[in-house]
Amino acid sequence: MASYTELLEKTAERNGSISCFGMDPAIEKIPVKGSNNCERIAKFYSEILAAVADKIAAVKPNYAFFAQYGLDGLRAMEAVIAAAKKKKLPVILDAKRGDIGKSSEAYSKEVFGIWKADAVTVSPYMGMDSVAPFIQWCGKGKGVYVLVRTSNPGAADLQQLQLKNGKDVFMETAAKVAEWHKDGVGAVVGATNTTELERIAKFFAASGKRMPLLIPGVGSQGGSAKDVAAVLRKIYGNTMMHRINSSSAISYAYEKTGSSDYVGAAEKAVDGLNSEIGL
Amino acid sequence: MASYTELLEKTAERNGSISCFGMDPAIEKIPVKGSNNCERIAKFYSEILAAVADKIAAVKPNYAFFAQYGLDGLRAMEAVIAAAKKKKLPVILDAKRGDIGKSSEAYSKEVFGIWKADAVTVSPYMGMDSVAPFIQWCGKGKGVYVLVRTSNPGAADLQQLQLKNGKDVFMETAAKVAEWHKDGVGAVVGATNTTELERIAKFFAASGKRMPLLIPGVGSQGGSAKDVAAVLRKIYGNTMMHRINSSSAISYAYEKTGSSDYVGAAEKAVDGLNSEIGL
Repeated sequence: MASYTELLEKTAERNGSISCFGMDPAIEKIPVKGSNNCERIAKFYSEILAAVADKIAAVKPNYAFFAQYGLDGLRAMEAVIAAAKKKKLPVILDAKRGDIGKSSEAYSKEVFGIWKADAVTVSPYMGMDSVAPFIQWCGKGKGVYVLVRTSNPGAADLQQLQLKNGKDVFMETAAKVAEWHKDGVGAVVGATNTTELERIAKFFAASGKRMPLLIPGVGSQGGSAKDVAAVLRKIYGNTMMHRINSSSAISYAYEKTGSSDYVGAAEKAVDGLNSEIGL
Repeated sequence: MASYTELLEKTAERNGSISCFGMDPAIEKIPVKGSNNCERIAKFYSEILAAVADKIAAVKPNYAFFAQYGLDGLRAMEAVIAAAKKKKLPVILDAKRGDIGKSSEAYSKEVFGIWKADAVTVSPYMGMDSVAPFIQWCGKGKGVYVLVRTSNPGAADLQQLQLKNGKDVFMETAAKVAEWHKDGVGAVVGATNTTELERIAKFFAASGKRMPLLIPGVGSQGGSAKDVAAVLRKIYGNTMMHRINSSSAISYAYEKTGSSDYVGAAEKAVDGLNSEIGL
C-alpha cells in the first residue's frame, strides 16, 4: 500500500501543483440554488472541483464550516469528499482534533472510517497519547498533520512562549512531532510568518524525516504563496510533498469579479496560485 | 437571562450534587436492542438519565464517541441532549475544539446553535482568537471550559514544560484563561493529579473570578473523587459551581455486577460518586 506521503508526491507530479483547495462553506456566499444546504454546498464545490481537479494537489474540507449546518452540512461534506476522491485528490480533513487516547481513537474512526479522509489535522496540547491513535492509521496509508505554528494572530499566546531550555513552545512541539514521526506524519505551519516557517522547515529537513507540511494562511489571511514557495525551494529544492492551502480566495473569487461565474473565477484563482508558487 | 455559572449553581443546589455524567457510547457495551445505532444509544442513555437525573448536576456527551458512528451517532447525541435538557440538566459538549477565528465561530454555531449544548470544552493551543468566538456566547448564557491541565499521561508532553518566566505551560494557560475571563468561562483540570489541581484552583480562587472547573478523570482513569472533593472544599468551601465527571464508570457499571441491569447499576454508581464527593 502506498503511504500518504507517496500519495502526496504522486498527485503533485501528475498535476504539476502543490496547491491545496480549502473548502469553507458559507451558505450566504454560495450562489447556487437547491432545495437544501446539503444540495447547494455539494453542487457548488463539485462544479469547482470538476474545473480545477487537475490543477490542484489536495483538497482540505474544514469540518467546522460544514458542521455549522448540522447533519445537512455533514452530508454535503461526505459528498464533497467523495467527489474529490473520484478525482484521485488527497483529502485533508481540517478538524484540529485532540483528546485523551480513547476519545482520539473514536475521532480517528470518524475521520478515516466514516468520512474516508486521507489525512487529518490534530492539536498537540494534550500530548503524545492524544495524537498516537491518529498516527496509528499512518500504517494504513493515512496522514496526520500536527499543529505546530498556526497562521492566526493568537498563535503567539502559547506557541511563541519561551521555554526554560531556550526553545519556543512551537519549536518544542516541532521536536515532539519529529520524535513521534512515522511516514505520513506532517505538520501545520502557517504562511503568515515565513521566518518561523523557515526555522521549522529547516529543523524538519535536518531531522532527516519525511515531514509533509500543510501551509494555510495565504489569500484572505494575508500570507504570500510566493514567499512560502521561496522558503520551501531554498530548503527542500523542488519537493512535491508539501501543500500550500488557499480557501476562500478560491471558492469566493467570483465576488471580486462582478460576475456570478464562480467556477471560472475559482479556476483563475487556482491558476494564479500555481503561478505564484511557480513549481 | 441566567448566566451559565448560575445554571450550574442552581442545578447543584436543586439536586444536592456536583457530579457530571459523561456519555461515551461504545456500541459493543450497550445491551439494548434497536434497529440502528441511533436508537440503541439514545434509548440506553435516556433510560439511565430517567433514573439519575435528580442525582446529578450536568451531563457531558463526548462528541468523539457519538461521531464515530457517523450521522447515526450524531442523531443519537441530539436525542440525548434533548433528554438531558428536558430534565433541566446543563449539557457540556465535550468537543475540545479550537481553530482560527472564523472556524471557531463556525464550531460555536454548531455546538450552541445546532446541538443546543449549554457549554463546550475548547483547546487553547491556537490562542485567544481561537477561543474568543466561543466566549462570545457567554453573554447568551453559554459556558466555555478551556483545557488547562488534562487528565491523560500525555498532558506532561507540552502542558508541564517549564517556561523561561518560571511558570509551567499549564499555569501560563491558566493565567491566560483568567485574563480572557467572562462569566461563564471555566477550565478543564484533570482529577488524576490533585497537586496540580490544587495549584490551579488556588490561582483561580485568588484571581477573584468565578471560574467553574470541569474535572474529568475519576473512575476508569484512576482519579479519586474523594481527593478531588477535598481539594475543592479546602479552597472553595462548599461551592456548587464545579463539576466532577465520571463517564464509563457510570454507563458501564453493570459490567462489573454480572447482571444486565444497566440502569440500576448506573444509579448505584452515581450514588457512590455522590457519597464519595460528600457534598
